[in-house]
Amino acid sequence: MDSHREVALGVDLGGTKLQVALVDREGLVLASKRVATDVQGGPWAVRSQIVEAARESMAQGQAEGFPLGIGLGVAGQIESETGRVLFGPNLGWKDVPLGAWIREELGFPVMVTNDVRAAAFGEWKFGAGRGVQDLVCLFVGTGIGGGIVAGGRLLHGASNSAGELGHLVVEVSGPACDCGGRGCLEALAGGRALAREARRAVQAYPAAGARLLGMAGGNLEGITAKILIQAARGGDRLARDILAKAKEALVAGLVSIVHGFNPGRVVLGGGIVEGMDELVEELEERLKARAMKAATRGLELVRAELGGVAGAVGAAAMVLAEEGLPSAVSSKGLEV
Amino acid sequence: MDSHREVALGVDLGGTKLQVALVDREGLVLASKRVATDVQGGPWAVRSQIVEAARESMAQGQAEGFPLGIGLGVAGQIESETGRVLFGPNLGWKDVPLGAWIREELGFPVMVTNDVRAAAFGEWKFGAGRGVQDLVCLFVGTGIGGGIVAGGRLLHGASNSAGELGHLVVEVSGPACDCGGRGCLEALAGGRALAREARRAVQAYPAAGARLLGMAGGNLEGITAKILIQAARGGDRLARDILAKAKEALVAGLVSIVHGFNPGRVVLGGGIVEGMDELVEELEERLKARAMKAATRGLELVRAELGGVAGAVGAAAMVLAEEGLPSAVSSKGLEV
Repeated sequence: MDSHREVALGVDLGGTKLQVALVDREGLVLASKRVATDVQGGPWAVRSQIVEAARESMAQGQAEGFPLGIGLGVAGQIESETGRVLFGPNLGWKDVPLGAWIREELGFPVMVTNDVRAAAFGEWKFGAGRGVQDLVCLFVGTGIGGGIVAGGRLLHGASNSAGELGHLVVEVSGPACDCGGRGCLEALAGGRALAREARRAVQAYPAAGARLLGMAGGNLEGITAKILIQAARGGDRLARDILAKAKEALVAGLVSIVHGFNPGRVVLGGGIVEGMDELVEELEERLKARAMKAATRGLELVRAELGGVAGAVGAAAMVLAEEGLPSAVSSKGLEV
Repeated sequence: MDSHREVALGVDLGGTKLQVALVDREGLVLASKRVATDVQGGPWAVRSQIVEAARESMAQGQAEGFPLGIGLGVAGQIESETGRVLFGPNLGWKDVPLGAWIREELGFPVMVTNDVRAAAFGEWKFGAGRGVQDLVCLFVGTGIGGGIVAGGRLLHGASNSAGELGHLVVEVSGPACDCGGRGCLEALAGGRALAREARRAVQAYPAAGARLLGMAGGNLEGITAKILIQAARGGDRLARDILAKAKEALVAGLVSIVHGFNPGRVVLGGGIVEGMDELVEELEERLKARAMKAATRGLELVRAELGGVAGAVGAAAMVLAEEGLPSAVSSKGLEV
């Protein structure tokens, strides 16, 4: 067994893509592989994809040493002790023993966590959150998720659900959210909600919405958050109004985050953030105007740095830090 | 020096009352003293009150040993490293070096923290939060405050402001809050806000508000949250409507708390909670109907147990646990 370097495998498993990376203690990606998730094939097919991509990455990075383990960041609700994916809406999964499957196949320690929490851990260890003891990462994409570091430790919560920041309620009687609640931040500022709202507005106000509809090739269902942002950048009034409401909600959500967790830094990432120039600066200014001074002293808002590889890097980093590794499968009990 | 028992002094300093207690490692109050806070006399007078009450409690509990230190839970924003009270609105204080004053006078380690956080620590160690690793305490009184335990540790935050749960935003364009923001939980469900809203409603709807006004002796300014709750209990429609809106806000706030922190237990305390029978049960039911299942698995809502002594007991318990003790004044560096 070659081991002149301590490395781990990290996996970011989403409904669209599967990213695997071999990562060292400095966060360097030594090998990586990215494929489209075979959602149609079901859990067992995805398991095979993970195993294959993991083996390829190991072979590619062979000279770098044998992995200490594999971390899986999965889009869904995870039971960390067992490595089960309890519910993965975008994967169409319910109660999949992914951790056990992978462990059986690869024969080394497996850690399973939520994909967003893994990404937050990655940003904390190797990205825009480096060196901060109290950190919140907020990812605003199709949905909205987060990860929390408090007092130098990643928060997991009593049932492994801490950091569901997309479901902070910012409007007590607000619109229904996909989570079953209402008025959640995600229901007001997530990409899916924005696209929905844009389509609704275009139908309600055809004249004002003509440009948006045109940008989507005349196809109502083709209106996405991305198109909405482009239209707003181009000066479209309707698009701007919709985004203005979303920004209001984001400011309110950030106020709650800052008052609840009092982070020293907030890292903002995800497609919506990446798509909008100046958004982070604007949010920081408005947040500081609205929140209590004591809670924003020294606070800074910054953009995420790791991009699409954050989840895989973070999942690997969690293994290297033995973060979230169930004791039953930790490296202490490992025989290789 | 007598020390067959490890004890500490705890102080709960509010704008109305000053509670001092001598507490042992089991949370037993061995001696205590409660006086009206001499807010008029200014910080120096209050300092003397604290020192005197502390000495009395020590004398009273003399046989129990010499205190390891004194913990001060103060209604305000605290700089924990220095023990300064940066801002205490109810005390009328700004930048008062209370920690240094008390240390100089009593000659033993001093820990200064926020009063609500101290009360949360008390409930965690000796009250309704015993044995829980992920706990949120929410105190709904005149204002609303909270304290967070995550992964078995009390959260402080980057600038010692974690747990300002009264200032979670639950209504993005909601009413102005005393904190300078808007739509905060406190602005919708705190006792001060409820009284304000009741007075406004009585003025706006004199007929519907006649009973409420009568209960306050015909004096608009005499309408308090307590009277509002009494009126609602007696079946008054206006009072019930006002409280119904407040409950909505509390449910929304609890949803945010549960999604953000994922506690295994939420302890509810404070005058509003104490005044309303069945409130905790109702909130638990509505919270669980609105929040994500994964985040409420195993969650229970319970009433606070320590009542008015929680802050003093908690502040003493923090000293005994060396929680929040600045290194410069910790018992390690103590000479007595």
